[in-house]
Amino acid sequence: IHELKLNLEQIEKGGYDHFMLKEIHEQPRAIIDTFRGRLLRSEGIIKMSGVEDNMKKLLNADRIIIAACGTSWHAGLVAEYIFEEFARIPVEVEYASEFRYRNPVISEKDVLIAISQSGETADTLAAIKLAKSKGAFVFGVCNVVGSSIARETDAGAYTHAGPEIGVASTKAFTTQITVLALMALRLARAKGTMSSSKYRLYLQEIELIPAKIERLLKVDEKVKEIAEIYQHVPNCLYLGRGFNFPVALEGALKLKEISYIHAEGYPAAEMKHGPIALIDENMPVIVIATDSEHYEKIVSNIQEIKSRKGKIIAIVTEGDHVVKNLADHVIEIPYVEEAFSPLLTTIPLQLLSYHIAVMRGCNVDQPRNLAKSVTVE
Amino acid sequence: IHELKLNLEQIEKGGYDHFMLKEIHEQPRAIIDTFRGRLLRSEGIIKMSGVEDNMKKLLNADRIIIAACGTSWHAGLVAEYIFEEFARIPVEVEYASEFRYRNPVISEKDVLIAISQSGETADTLAAIKLAKSKGAFVFGVCNVVGSSIARETDAGAYTHAGPEIGVASTKAFTTQITVLALMALRLARAKGTMSSSKYRLYLQEIELIPAKIERLLKVDEKVKEIAEIYQHVPNCLYLGRGFNFPVALEGALKLKEISYIHAEGYPAAEMKHGPIALIDENMPVIVIATDSEHYEKIVSNIQEIKSRKGKIIAIVTEGDHVVKNLADHVIEIPYVEEAFSPLLTTIPLQLLSYHIAVMRGCNVDQPRNLAKSVTVE
Repeated sequence: IHELKLNLEQIEKGGYDHFMLKEIHEQPRAIIDTFRGRLLRSEGIIKMSGVEDNMKKLLNADRIIIAACGTSWHAGLVAEYIFEEFARIPVEVEYASEFRYRNPVISEKDVLIAISQSGETADTLAAIKLAKSKGAFVFGVCNVVGSSIARETDAGAYTHAGPEIGVASTKAFTTQITVLALMALRLARAKGTMSSSKYRLYLQEIELIPAKIERLLKVDEKVKEIAEIYQHVPNCLYLGRGFNFPVALEGALKLKEISYIHAEGYPAAEMKHGPIALIDENMPVIVIATDSEHYEKIVSNIQEIKSRKGKIIAIVTEGDHVVKNLADHVIEIPYVEEAFSPLLTTIPLQLLSYHIAVMRGCNVDQPRNLAKSVTVE
Repeated sequence: IHELKLNLEQIEKGGYDHFMLKEIHEQPRAIIDTFRGRLLRSEGIIKMSGVEDNMKKLLNADRIIIAACGTSWHAGLVAEYIFEEFARIPVEVEYASEFRYRNPVISEKDVLIAISQSGETADTLAAIKLAKSKGAFVFGVCNVVGSSIARETDAGAYTHAGPEIGVASTKAFTTQITVLALMALRLARAKGTMSSSKYRLYLQEIELIPAKIERLLKVDEKVKEIAEIYQHVPNCLYLGRGFNFPVALEGALKLKEISYIHAEGYPAAEMKHGPIALIDENMPVIVIATDSEHYEKIVSNIQEIKSRKGKIIAIVTEGDHVVKNLADHVIEIPYVEEAFSPLLTTIPLQLLSYHIAVMRGCNVDQPRNLAKSVTVE
């Protein structure tokens, strides 16, 4: 008889060293849970009761305003690109804390989407109350069932990611994007802004995401090797364009949160308007350079950085050979429709910050100074 | 007879060590030039031909979209707050480089305001062409007369800041804000969203700005002392709320550009959603904590930073005593209406980055890797 040498926390971590790592690996499963009952691919439909019941309000919206904080704000930025591309509705993304205090222009013709993992974020709650007082229709996207935001909103959709224990959000982020992408697809179909063939293609593509993440998670060893090399850097830049500009912000935030390295995200083209002055042989630059309409532009950004001797870690699409020849390190992701690429590109960035934090001896699941949910203003 | 030992460049610098310092000091004069012929305070009117001639288009706009890059993008963010507050028109601010590539939702009911010092910024020019092709009315705010943007736009207003030689923009920024503030006031009056008494007050207040900057420039010695202390730091955070959130971004960009210190700006309330993990006894945090509706919130942000041993350099309003007791250093600005405060709060941040860069031996006027105007994509 062997004695069981696991305590409760170890059991809860399911064999992983940290909750964060467990939650990173749970993402395929979490996204399948987000799909459940909503993505009915064989029937070619998306069913979300919060959307169906309020279709008229959503379709007649002059504008969608997304209010959120932190990682949820980044999910909102990704959603902005997806909603505008798919459903052709103008979207504005606001820091909840700024929105609530600035007497924003908002009316009953607007829809506010509030995003929060916990559903308890104080500034986001206040933004909801403000928008409601001006007559706007408020839709909530949260993870925790029965949370304050779920109760305060007119309608909503849960992410169903399961409990997220690590303070640095991972599966909450990808499931937020998933819910919002499903919603954008549904509205695009109802509005007629997407052809039925394209719609079917996107349904098929989004359904493949969990399997692609599963495959992508095998880059872990490679990411660990890269983490080994850069674990001691004091600074880091993250660049992306289009759908992946918010992923650059989110990648940088992860590194800040858990490894205490000063990392900053930028839309790649803005680099020339200032941040490029920071680049020298000590500055690692993580560039999302996956297959996209901006591929050539990103290649030229990489060349500029290399000519200033910056170190490049590039996220590329399998089969890429141009960036591979320029970058110091590449991490490959499976091919994916550009609009859904944030769901993949973000994964290696989560792993990178995780491994660097572990190597630096940081408390990954409970980083200093941070709380899981910010319920104060 | 004494021989004249000045070369042409020294003459052009007008006795200042660098163009940047000269241009910082030129701001009161530059703003007076921006006012000329437009701000007719004694008559109680603002006259801008580009606005008058297109009043209907501007007043009927569903949305104003502002497209710009770098420092001009920050001026656009300040303008968003001013336009929404004064004229109650929804404003969205876009990175020109992102806007042009993402098939944005834009129509003949929208107005695009493009901001660029040089009037030659490639991404901003491309954004203008895209907006025009979709039927939007395009208004340009540039400094260089007869520039490409001035020619491509339907109407516009020059900033009249005079030539800006330093690569890091200073007087271009404050005059951009000035032009946009005058425009917002004019539209507010035409739209009836501002009472005539408030309007008169704002005209009076904005007219006082140059004199207040003149007075504020005397903080130079104090700023230099602070620069002395922090010249060797590798990282720095800048925080602000509301009208001064964009000033935090701009202050950080200045430090990045000319001193190569990794500085980052944040809306103060977002700090708790990640960046606060960076704070320890080595991290200086510059906080704009002037008199405003958010004053108490900012005070509590400062307390959080102090409890994590961060170093605080605060920009406060003359007569402040709460922040003075909490911060490690305070820089006072004259009292000003909150909406115009960015025109003052930005000045000490310009001086701070200038002095730090000089102390670090950097080439202030021509920082590495940067060009004055980014005419490539």
